Formats: sequence, C-alpha cells, structure tokens
Amino acid sequence: MRFLTTKRLTWFLIIAGVYILYSVAFASGSGGAATDAEKAMEEPVLSVLLQLIVILLAAKLGGDLFERIKAPAVLGELVLGMVIGNLHLLGFDGFEPFKHNVTLEILAEIGVIILLFEVGLESTVKEMMKVGLASFMVATFGVVAPFFLGWGVSVLFLPEESIYVHIFIGATLTATSVGITARVLKDIGKVNTREAKIILGAAVIDDIMGLVILAVVTGVISAAAAGTGEGVSSGTVLWIIAKAVLFIFGAIAIGSFVLPAFFKFGFRLKVKGVLLSFSLLVCFLLAYLAGEVGLAPIVGAFAAGLILEEVWFKDYHSRGEQSIQDLISPIATFMVPIFFVRMGMLVDLTTFANLEILGFAALLTLAAIVGKQACSLAIFDKTTNRIAIGLGMIPRGEVGLIFAGIGAKLVLEGEAVINSSTYSAVVIMVIITTLVTPPLLIFSMLRKGNAQDKAEQVKEIPASGR
Amino acid sequence: MRFLTTKRLTWFLIIAGVYILYSVAFASGSGGAATDAEKAMEEPVLSVLLQLIVILLAAKLGGDLFERIKAPAVLGELVLGMVIGNLHLLGFDGFEPFKHNVTLEILAEIGVIILLFEVGLESTVKEMMKVGLASFMVATFGVVAPFFLGWGVSVLFLPEESIYVHIFIGATLTATSVGITARVLKDIGKVNTREAKIILGAAVIDDIMGLVILAVVTGVISAAAAGTGEGVSSGTVLWIIAKAVLFIFGAIAIGSFVLPAFFKFGFRLKVKGVLLSFSLLVCFLLAYLAGEVGLAPIVGAFAAGLILEEVWFKDYHSRGEQSIQDLISPIATFMVPIFFVRMGMLVDLTTFANLEILGFAALLTLAAIVGKQACSLAIFDKTTNRIAIGLGMIPRGEVGLIFAGIGAKLVLEGEAVINSSTYSAVVIMVIITTLVTPPLLIFSMLRKGNAQDKAEQVKEIPASGR
Repeated sequence: MRFLTTKRLTWFLIIAGVYILYSVAFASGSGGAATDAEKAMEEPVLSVLLQLIVILLAAKLGGDLFERIKAPAVLGELVLGMVIGNLHLLGFDGFEPFKHNVTLEILAEIGVIILLFEVGLESTVKEMMKVGLASFMVATFGVVAPFFLGWGVSVLFLPEESIYVHIFIGATLTATSVGITARVLKDIGKVNTREAKIILGAAVIDDIMGLVILAVVTGVISAAAAGTGEGVSSGTVLWIIAKAVLFIFGAIAIGSFVLPAFFKFGFRLKVKGVLLSFSLLVCFLLAYLAGEVGLAPIVGAFAAGLILEEVWFKDYHSRGEQSIQDLISPIATFMVPIFFVRMGMLVDLTTFANLEILGFAALLTLAAIVGKQACSLAIFDKTTNRIAIGLGMIPRGEVGLIFAGIGAKLVLEGEAVINSSTYSAVVIMVIITTLVTPPLLIFSMLRKGNAQDKAEQVKEIPASGR
Repeated sequence: MRFLTTKRLTWFLIIAGVYILYSVAFASGSGGAATDAEKAMEEPVLSVLLQLIVILLAAKLGGDLFERIKAPAVLGELVLGMVIGNLHLLGFDGFEPFKHNVTLEILAEIGVIILLFEVGLESTVKEMMKVGLASFMVATFGVVAPFFLGWGVSVLFLPEESIYVHIFIGATLTATSVGITARVLKDIGKVNTREAKIILGAAVIDDIMGLVILAVVTGVISAAAAGTGEGVSSGTVLWIIAKAVLFIFGAIAIGSFVLPAFFKFGFRLKVKGVLLSFSLLVCFLLAYLAGEVGLAPIVGAFAAGLILEEVWFKDYHSRGEQSIQDLISPIATFMVPIFFVRMGMLVDLTTFANLEILGFAALLTLAAIVGKQACSLAIFDKTTNRIAIGLGMIPRGEVGLIFAGIGAKLVLEGEAVINSSTYSAVVIMVIITTLVTPPLLIFSMLRKGNAQDKAEQVKEIPASGR
C-alpha cells in the first residue's frame, strides 16, 4: 500500500509539473498584448497563490514525514521550509522571491497571531492570574541568566570590544519567542496544563522586560556614542514600562467589561458570521494595539484569546452556531503553517559554513539554552514539571533578530555595535533554539506525570478539525 | 431593547476610540529608540491589521443595516465601503492608505477566489455539462449585444473619434464579473438552481470570449497605430482560444482523474488538516493556472470547486472530519467581505460630479444593462427564469476596468484610445452595474416559482456557519 501511495504521488507530481510547465510556456509564449497586460494586473496575486500552493504542500508533507519518525509536525514544517529556502545553493532559485514577498510575510504574521489567539482561547484571565507570580518569577530568572551568560560569552570571544557590545549581545538573548512553544503545546494537547500557562504568562512578561532592556541599552549606547554620558532617563524607561503594563491590564479590564456588551450587540445583528468576525476583530485589535505600544502583536492576540470567554456566547450557540475555537480552527489550519514554513525558508544554511562564526554561535546558543534553564529554579511547586518550563522558554525568534538588527544600525567609535559575524551568530542561535525546542519539550511534557497533568487540565469545548 | 443596544455600541465605540487614540499618542509620543525601531519592523503587519479591523466591522454593520431594510448584505458591504473610501471628501483621510495597500488587495483577491471555490463546490462537473449549451448561448448573446450597444453609444457621444475607439468601448462592456452574482446567489441559497448554473457557466465562457476580443481589438489598434495594417494574426487568436479552452477541459479531465488519488494519498498522511489544506491547494493551483493562461483567477477557483466531489472524501468524513464546505466556510466569512468592502472603497464619488461625463456614463451603463438582457433571449426552456439570467449577467468588474486600463495605454494618432473621461464613465458603469444587480436579482429569484426551483435543487451537505 505504501509503495502504491508513493507511486501515485510521483505520478501526480509529474503530471502537475508538466501541466504547470506547459501553462507557463503557453502564457509566456505568444500571449499577445491582452495576456501580457492582464498578467501584469494579476501578477501580485498570482505569485502569492503560487507561494501558498508550495507552502500548503510543504507543510503537510513535512508534517507527515516528521510525525512518522515520531517528531513534531511543526519541526517538519520548519525543516521542509529550510530545504525550500536553500535550494538556491543547488542552483534552483525559483523559490527566492518567496523570502522577500511582503504579503507572504504579513500572512505569516497573521498566522502566528491566529495561533496565539487560539492558544489564548483555551485559558481564561482568571486561570492566568493564578500562575501570575510564578510566571513573573520565571520571566525574571529567564531574562537575567541569559543576559549575563551572553555577556560572558561576548567577553570571552570578543575581548577587544567595548562593554556596550557585551551588554547588547546579552540583551539579544533575553526575550522568549513563544510561537513555537505554543504550537507544540497545542499539537500535543497540553495548552491547559499549569506548565503551559506559566510559560505563556512568562513569555508575555519577558517581552515587556526585553522591551525595557532594549530601550535602556540603546539609550546608554547612543549617549556613549554622542559622548554626552547622559544615557536614557529613568522617566523614559518608566514610560515604556507603564504603557506596556497599562496595555495588558487595560485590555483585560476594559475587555472584560465592554466585550460582553459588544457581543450581545453583535448577537442582534441580522447578518451571518458575526461571532467569528467579531472575535477576529477583537484579536486583531489587541494585536494592533500591542504593536502600537511596542510589544509583539502576538502578545495582544494572546491577551484577546484570554479575555474572550465562551460563556458570553451561549446565545450564539443556542441558535446552533459553532464555538469560536471550531470557527477559528480552519483559519488556523490554513494560515499557521505559513509562519513556520516561511521561518524555515529564511534560514540561510551558508551561515553554518563559517567555522569562526560557528564557534561563537555555538557558545551563544549554549548560553541561550542554559540561561533559560534558570527558569526552572523559579518554580518551588513540586507538582509542576519545572524542566518543561525551562525547555519551553528556550526559543528565541523575531525579538532577538530585531534586537540584533537595531544593534547593527547603532554605531560606536565608527563601528557597528553588532557586526555582520555577530549578527550571523545571533541568527544561528535563533535557528538552533527553534529547532531543539519541539523534541525536548514534547519529551519532557509527555514523559512526566500524565496523571497530574490530567488533574489540572480544565475541561473546555474541544477544538476540532486541525 | 433596541435603544439599549445602540447606547451600548456608542459606549463601546467611545471607549475604543479613546483607547486607540491614547495608545497611538503613547506610541508616537516618547517611545524612544526601541519602540520606534520595533515599530518600523512591524509596521506593515500593523497597518494591515488596522485595515482588517475596520473592514470586519464595516462588513457586519453594513450587512446588518441593509438586511434590516430587506436589502442584501453584500450591498451593505459595498455601500459602507463607499462611505469609508470617500470620507476624505469630508476632510478625514485616515482611510486613504487602505486603497493602495498591496497586501489588502491580495487578501481581497484571495477572498473572491475562496467565494467562487465555495460556489463551485455546490455543483459538479456533470451538472454544469448539462447546462453547457445554454451557458454558451447565454454567453454569446451577452457578449454580442453589449458590444454593439456600447459601440453605438460611443458613436453617439464621441462622433469625432475613430472607429477603433468605438470598438474598444464596446469591448469593455462584454465580460461579466461573476463575483457579486455568486455572492448573492449564495446568500439567498440559490446556487443549486438551474439559473445559477447557467449564469456561472456563461460567466466562465464570456471571460474566455472577452479575452479573445481584447486580443483582437488591441492587435488591430496596435497595427493601425503602427500603420502596418496587418492586425493580429488568426494564429494568435486561435492560440489564445486554444489555451483557455485547454485549461478548462484539461483541468476537468486531469483533475477528475488525478485528484481522487491525490486525496487518497493525503488520507494516509499522519498529520492534521490535510483535507482543508489539500482542497485549498487545488483551489489556489487552478486559480493560479487560470491566471497564467490569461483568464481571471476566479474562473480557475470555480473550476476547482466543480471538480472536487464530496464522495472522494468519505474516508475523511468516516473518521469524523467535517465536509470541505464546513471547513471553507469560516475562511470565507473572514476573507470574502474584504473583497466587497474594498471594492466599495475604490468607488470615487467625485466621478459622479462631472455632468458631462455623467451623461455618457449613464448611456454606457444602460447599454451594459440592456445588452445583457439579450441573454434571456438565448433561453428557450420555459421553466427557466430567463429574466434572472439576464439580471445575473449584469455586473461588470475588474475585467472591464482592465480593458479600459489597457485602452488608456494604447495610443492612436497621439491620443489615448480611452481618455480620462471615458475611463471615468467606464468606472461609473462598473459601479452602477454592481450596485443594481443584488436587489434586482434577489427580487427576480425569490419572486418566481419557488416550487420549481426546489424541484431542481440538488441535495448536498448544507454549508453551515456563515
């Protein structure tokens, strides 16, 4: 049976390939003015369609491949993305435009926003409050330890650089990128465990901390470069903290108060699809506002998911409408893999070829991974799987790259604070922390105490479909 | 109760407004380097999120408003889009960037692709074959009559222009833009009627005819401009027809043959969400290929929907997975209104202020509407609602605008074939044909013979959700 399947796929791919080639040849052949002009109008849509086709196929084939070897599907999406994104090394550069398409980038971002919204839906604000202190402690430990370890690695490898460079490199290691952890927890059905809640809460908090550190470090370096020695004022720092914290608590307070009325209003609208549209509206609104105050949009999307409570929608359900989770699920199936496959595509394998960079990158990665294991020290509760929490905090993503990007633009004594080889090392650190997390986290979550997990799991309407 | 609702909404909007203003003020106030830099990285995502928020809200409020006055929801989406898109006339230009955002444009295009896919799913290839001849006749009548009427209007209003201008203006009136008709038929649950199938089939065929006419007309004018008098070769025309027809029949033949195996293969993949992902893949692939051969991508999406047969997915359903229609429905709820609200936004009300253009536009619109009523003459079957078919073929959309856009670039004796006032008249024609269709079509479809419609309706798994 397996053989037949493969044979059929090959068959299909051959036919599809021939068909595409013939169409393309036709189209570019003697299309005449009409075709060319129409094509010019449609071009942006067509290229995105082609990219979505490749990504949808890659996501499912990669997912299947990795599920078969008992590895998580998301790793398959990342790895197949890496393969596609590096085919140019073998001389095929048909996939290169994928990396620079703004629309695909935005679709990927919306995908990860939908993912965090979905994950947030599985918890409530009340449940998160319960783990608030634990999350805060985990975030603090998980910011401090990698910061100083990164600093140390920098001192070791770049002894001739100034202290500012060391500080900046330490800062790039602080913020957790929770997308991959959220996806893994969702895939293995562990979003409702205490561990998951602590990790997700801590990721929100360390995003705020990272924001503050970046502001301080950038301010100090800018001042040093200008020779004023003034640094960043404590007022500015307080302001940054204040607006991030205000956003979180403001969203929760106003959201819990206003949103039930908003959905009651929506219930009376004489038009289909209100529940889904309004839920997406709330998700996008909080993601947008989070972005506006300087946080990652996914933090806002997660908050939106937390705030929305299924009990508000009894009216909708009683007239036969599906739960929000069921409605969001197909959108997530479509859009979430775009984020992970694209993330894989952006991995440039040639960065691994430079041995000198590789040594620095290896130690930086070690600092990033070991540093976050300090998180487990913040957990005193013995029934909680503290190892899993340390592992779940490992991934670094966009925020680390954004930090490095800002460092690359900061100039001190005529040199960029983050030079190109340091930037490559940071990229490698991001790649490795992303790739190692899924298997480690799954191993830890599924090995330890299934019974105790179950006891803590909150019963919710199960998400179907995906 | 109603009053309370409005009060609550006002309340919500005030709070939301204040909240947004305060966030924006915060963000742009004293953000410091960190916020600015992070914002710069996130900017494209944030602006699209903001646009989606506005569109989701406008779609539901507009839909509700129009449903209350017994008008179709889609008209509400268009009209609220028009309001938003023309607020700059009142001095508020916060929505202007919406019109030029490429990503929003592509999301809108994907929205209408999903819509036509959904509509296609409700029919089968076999059912369409049954109405094939009727569709062909309807398409032919509906291309010939508007072409000559448009020519006549042009002779009347622009007597000093050359024959080529008249021909070109006639050509812009030929192709039906089936998105709005499909949406209306779907909203009133009439996609499975014989009338709907004839209209949808005819729209596919007249897209091919339009393509050919455009190629011929453009070729003739280019030749006249170059003074060679050669025109377009019959070989080129045959080629354009051949590849469009080959695409349609190739897709159906290869699709019906290969796709069952493809989905059988997918069934064995050990990963979630295969059914939806593979269905979208087929939809996007055919939309892409249609675009590549010069047809509208929605023609390919519709073909994809026709080809996919729910019986192939028994295996998936027997393990508890939802039908494709149920899986697609939430994605459609999210993405389809983007197309219609955005279409409304692009309406420039100032074009209606020029009286001279308005007269030409009015007659052109009349030619467009009356011309398509010739379609009803192509129907000899007395049980079919021929008036509805004529009405369903009225809308002109992108294709008309694309034609006009090409004409604006063609230069003959130092002047553009389509000058700016003619272009405005075509735009007005597109707007009016779009706006008049929903109420007329609904009136005709719901008035005439409910009993006979029901007799012809094919039983399918009902789509839920939206």
